[in-house]
Amino acid sequence: MPRIPQPDLSALDAARARQLQLTKPAGSLGKLETIACQLASLQGREIPLPLSPAITVFAGDHGVCAEGVSAFPQAVTGAMVANFVHGGAAISVLARVNQARLEVVDAGVASDLGGLPIIHAKVRAGSGNLRHEPAMSREEAQQALNVGRDAARRAIAEGATLLIAGDMGIGNTTPSAALICRLGGHAPALVVGRGTGVDDAALAVKCQVVSDALARVAAQELDGVALLAELGGLEIAAMAGFYLEGAAQGIPLLLDGFISTAAALAARAINPDLTPWLLASHCSQETGHQLALATLGLTPLIDLGFRLGEGSGAAAAIPLLQQAIALHAGMATFAEAGVAGKA
Amino acid sequence: MPRIPQPDLSALDAARARQLQLTKPAGSLGKLETIACQLASLQGREIPLPLSPAITVFAGDHGVCAEGVSAFPQAVTGAMVANFVHGGAAISVLARVNQARLEVVDAGVASDLGGLPIIHAKVRAGSGNLRHEPAMSREEAQQALNVGRDAARRAIAEGATLLIAGDMGIGNTTPSAALICRLGGHAPALVVGRGTGVDDAALAVKCQVVSDALARVAAQELDGVALLAELGGLEIAAMAGFYLEGAAQGIPLLLDGFISTAAALAARAINPDLTPWLLASHCSQETGHQLALATLGLTPLIDLGFRLGEGSGAAAAIPLLQQAIALHAGMATFAEAGVAGKA
Repeated sequence: MPRIPQPDLSALDAARARQLQLTKPAGSLGKLETIACQLASLQGREIPLPLSPAITVFAGDHGVCAEGVSAFPQAVTGAMVANFVHGGAAISVLARVNQARLEVVDAGVASDLGGLPIIHAKVRAGSGNLRHEPAMSREEAQQALNVGRDAARRAIAEGATLLIAGDMGIGNTTPSAALICRLGGHAPALVVGRGTGVDDAALAVKCQVVSDALARVAAQELDGVALLAELGGLEIAAMAGFYLEGAAQGIPLLLDGFISTAAALAARAINPDLTPWLLASHCSQETGHQLALATLGLTPLIDLGFRLGEGSGAAAAIPLLQQAIALHAGMATFAEAGVAGKA
Repeated sequence: MPRIPQPDLSALDAARARQLQLTKPAGSLGKLETIACQLASLQGREIPLPLSPAITVFAGDHGVCAEGVSAFPQAVTGAMVANFVHGGAAISVLARVNQARLEVVDAGVASDLGGLPIIHAKVRAGSGNLRHEPAMSREEAQQALNVGRDAARRAIAEGATLLIAGDMGIGNTTPSAALICRLGGHAPALVVGRGTGVDDAALAVKCQVVSDALARVAAQELDGVALLAELGGLEIAAMAGFYLEGAAQGIPLLLDGFISTAAALAARAINPDLTPWLLASHCSQETGHQLALATLGLTPLIDLGFRLGEGSGAAAAIPLLQQAIALHAGMATFAEAGVAGKA
C-alpha cells in the first residue's frame, strides 16, 4: 500500500505569516484564510497555485434497495449515468462552470451500461443486501478500491491538482449510514436520513435495516477493507480507493456530502495518514453528515442545504477555494500598499 | 422619487415549476434553487440570464472616530482607496476573479484623494461626530443619496445586471450599529461589535457612543433621510441611494455585510418597495449582522466568517449565484433525460 506523505508545515507557517501582512484586519477573511493556508501546506508552497479540479463520479447499485429504502427505483442509477454523459445532470453543469475534468466510472451498476462513453470497471452488477449478507466479498472490495485508485491516477496524470469524488447509486445513503454509525460509534437514529426523500414509514424501515446490518457484524473485528465489504457499496469502496491514491500522490481531496464522507471514513480506517488531505466543502441536509464530518475533525465551508450527491456540493465550493487562493496570492501587503496597520 | 417595480410573480411560478422537473430530487439543490427562482422573478424570466455584476465601493470618513471607536487610524480610509485603485485590496482581487466592474466613489473621505482615478463626489470631508451632533445635514444626506443613485445609473448603463455596494470608512461600524438599533428596535449590546478588531475597553466605549447617539435623537420622529443625516455616514447614505436607484431600475441587489445591511435598512425606510430586490450574500462575524438581516427578512447564503466590508462577502458569493442560474438553465428535465421520477 503506497505511503501517504505529511503536509508541509513550513509552507503552512509561511502562508499564515503572509496572511497577517495582507491589507485587511487579521482574520477578516475568515474561512478563506484558513483554507488558503491549508492548501499552501498541501501544495508545499507559501502561495498555492490555482487549482485544476477533477471530478470522478462513481456509480454502483445496492442490493439493499430490495428493502424499500429509497424513494427512487434502482433503474435511475443507470439512467443518471447516461444523463451525466449527456451533460444534463447537476454535476455535468457544475463541472462545465468550474472548468473541471469530469469522468464517470461504472464500479458496479446493476444494469448494462456498455453503450455509454464512460470508464467500464464494473466489479459486480450491484452489491449484496447488507441487511442479511455482506455487500461484497473482501476480494471485490479490494477490486473496487483499485477501480478508485486507477481513476485518481488518470485524473492526476491529466493534471488534476484537486480531486473530487462524486457518487451515483440509488440506495447508497443506507450503506453510508451503516459505515458512519460503525466507524463513529453513533446510533442509527442520529445518522439515518431521508436520502432522496423517503417518507416517514420508509425512514423507519431504513433505520431498522441499518440497525440489522450493524447487529449482523457487531461481534466482528473488521479492518477498513472488511468494513467496506460488509457494510459498503461498490461505488463507495471505489471512492475510498480514489481518496487513498490521491493522498498518496499529495493531491488535496475535496469531500462532497454524506456518501463521500462515509467513503473517507472507511478510507481513513485503511490508512489514518489520509486525514490531513481531506477538505470539507459543504454540509449536506442528510441527517448525520455533520456528525460524520465531526468524526473526521472537519468543519464545512458552506451549508447550502444540498442533498444531491454526485459531487455537487464539492463542485459548488470550487470557486470559494479558487477565490481563497486568488486573495492569498493577489492582495497587497501593508508595506506594498503603504497602508498603516492596526493603531 | 422614482417608483420601484414589483418582481414578476408569474416568472417565479414558472421557475419553481421548472425546478421540479429537473433531474434531481425536488429541493435537493437547497438554497441554489431558491435563489435561481428569486432571480427569475427579479429578471422577469423563467430562466434567468447569467449575471453581469458591478461592484461600487463608497468611501467616507466618520467624525465619531474622535471617540476611539476603531482599531485603525482614520488615514487608512484614503490609503485603502488607493489600494483599491492599484488592485491590491481584497475587493480588487474578487472583482477580477468574478469579472465584475469595479468603481470606487469618494462620497466623503476626510483626506484629499484628488490624484486618484476614482469618482470624486465628496459631499463633505468626513461626517460629524454622531455622539454629539448630526452626522450631516439633511441636505448633505440628500446629496450623498444622489451620489449613490448616480453610481447605480453608471453601472447599469454599462450593462450591470447585479449590483453590489461595498464600503470603506474607518469607524463605519459605529453609525451602522446606530442605524440598525434605531431601525430594528434593538439594544446596542446586541448589535455593536468589534469592527476591524477593537479590544474590550474600546468595545465598551463604542457601545456607549452608540447609546448616546440613540439617546440624542430618541425623542424625534425621523424619516429615512433624517436617520441617515443624524446617525449615518456619507458612504452609507450613498449606498442607500445606490440600492434605491438599482431597485427602481429593476436590478437585483446583492447585500454585503454589516454596513451594507445598515444602508439597506435606511433605504427601506425611505421606500419599503425596496425589499424584494435585496438578496443576502453572507453573514458577517460582526455582532448584529444576523439580526439586521433578520429585520429585513433575509437569510444569508453563506457564512465564511468574513468581517472585512468593501463588498467582499457579496463578491465572494457571486459564483454561487452564477452556478444557481447555470443549474437552473442547463440541467435536463426528467422527460428530456428519460429518467424515472420518484417511485
